Amino acid sequence: MNTNLEIICVGNELLIGKTLNTNAQWMAKRATTLGMNVKRINTVSDDANEIAEAVQEALQRQPRFIITTGGLGPTFDDKTLEGIAGALNRKLDLNGEALKMVKEKYEAFFHQGRIDKVEMTPPRIKMATLPKGTEPLQNPIGTAPAVMIEVKGTILIALPGVPSEMEAIFEGTIASMLKKESGNVTFFEMSLYADDIFESALAPLLDQTMRANPYIYIKSHPRGEEKMPHIELHFSTTAKDPKIAKDRLGKAIIQLSELIGENGGKTRPQKKKQSM
Amino acid sequence: MNTNLEIICVGNELLIGKTLNTNAQWMAKRATTLGMNVKRINTVSDDANEIAEAVQEALQRQPRFIITTGGLGPTFDDKTLEGIAGALNRKLDLNGEALKMVKEKYEAFFHQGRIDKVEMTPPRIKMATLPKGTEPLQNPIGTAPAVMIEVKGTILIALPGVPSEMEAIFEGTIASMLKKESGNVTFFEMSLYADDIFESALAPLLDQTMRANPYIYIKSHPRGEEKMPHIELHFSTTAKDPKIAKDRLGKAIIQLSELIGENGGKTRPQKKKQSM
Repeated sequence: MNTNLEIICVGNELLIGKTLNTNAQWMAKRATTLGMNVKRINTVSDDANEIAEAVQEALQRQPRFIITTGGLGPTFDDKTLEGIAGALNRKLDLNGEALKMVKEKYEAFFHQGRIDKVEMTPPRIKMATLPKGTEPLQNPIGTAPAVMIEVKGTILIALPGVPSEMEAIFEGTIASMLKKESGNVTFFEMSLYADDIFESALAPLLDQTMRANPYIYIKSHPRGEEKMPHIELHFSTTAKDPKIAKDRLGKAIIQLSELIGENGGKTRPQKKKQSM
Repeated sequence: MNTNLEIICVGNELLIGKTLNTNAQWMAKRATTLGMNVKRINTVSDDANEIAEAVQEALQRQPRFIITTGGLGPTFDDKTLEGIAGALNRKLDLNGEALKMVKEKYEAFFHQGRIDKVEMTPPRIKMATLPKGTEPLQNPIGTAPAVMIEVKGTILIALPGVPSEMEAIFEGTIASMLKKESGNVTFFEMSLYADDIFESALAPLLDQTMRANPYIYIKSHPRGEEKMPHIELHFSTTAKDPKIAKDRLGKAIIQLSELIGENGGKTRPQKKKQSM
């Protein structure tokens, strides 16, 4: 079963550090929870060639899904569809179904008295001009439809970058597809906090616990900075049955807690309130 | 002048959406302000092959800088140096200078009474085991040194993932290098907010303003969601002289404001307080 998924974020605002990439975190978390294995998160500029290159590279790694966010709007620098067309070596073409979706949005604005007339200007037609053979997906919030196509076993989906639009289309259309592909497994996680022990002293204890618990992944995150070490130990596993997952996590947590105690450290399950 | 810079973030916690990638935003913003052109931000897992692949791909694009964050610590899943060694086809080797740096940290901990003895355990030696021919950089906060090497015109730097450590090494060692490479230019930005006009109606006005102001980049960010449109227009330019930059930005902002007014929209320079 191929559960690999790659995310490509499009936007100069991410590369100049103007915008914090909360879309990537939101989508990575949702996809992981739905049993997907997020392999890469790539960020590129609003440039059709850069987008095409990133999509081609991702396609070569043959993930089951590639999801892009951003660059679907009406302005000159919304280049994602041009980039995808380039990557797939397809022409951009006015899509009748997409045009209907866009037109209905402006008709609704007209009926609400928000615009004087329904006019399909070039920027509005642009949002319905899709790479040949792709399928528009309804955007319940904004005007630009999302776009989907399957290419050699990879489902490529282009979502808008406005968070509320991206999330609405993901929940409405994408989430159920991911769940089905992963065979309904779920990702489970738990954290343990260790004090009075350095990460370098913890390292062999993590090794030992992971060897004894083959389905558990443990990652240490130093949180204490310059004072005494304070380390978050993050345990995770993927399973269909929540009971099995919780038993596995519980067993590994008890084992590592005991090892840390034997080596002079302290542990506690609850997170202490602190800034990072 | 090659001012291209790529960022590679290493960490499963980013790919499962546990951690919001604030490091990438911080570094992208600092590098942009120092006149660099951030071309990509890539995120990969704690896997030596994945790291090697991402570093190799970035090297092929020949940016002036590649900066990685994360994966330099003492635990089994700190794989960045193994990945870089793989990408450069070099062996990992105990580095005398790095070993001295790591040892001095633990000696200080000993003198502070925080550890009972100074013991160079395998996890501690691991932090001083670098790809052959690379140079360790002092970490003023944590124990793991950063690592630097120049390969065929690209300066490759590996920084820790703990934000305070990453930022301290960046400000202490990297910032001055970037400033010198960019020829001391600086990035300037300003925002204008437009109301009562749809992004699709703004699109041709942005085109017109950018054609008349060749050194100015304008990007529109819809902020209004389901109510009336509310759009941030972000203007940016790069220059050595702040006066020139401000004059350019001012001219473009006035021009676009007038166009928006003529088309029934309103503008204001100050950001209205709102959640996004």
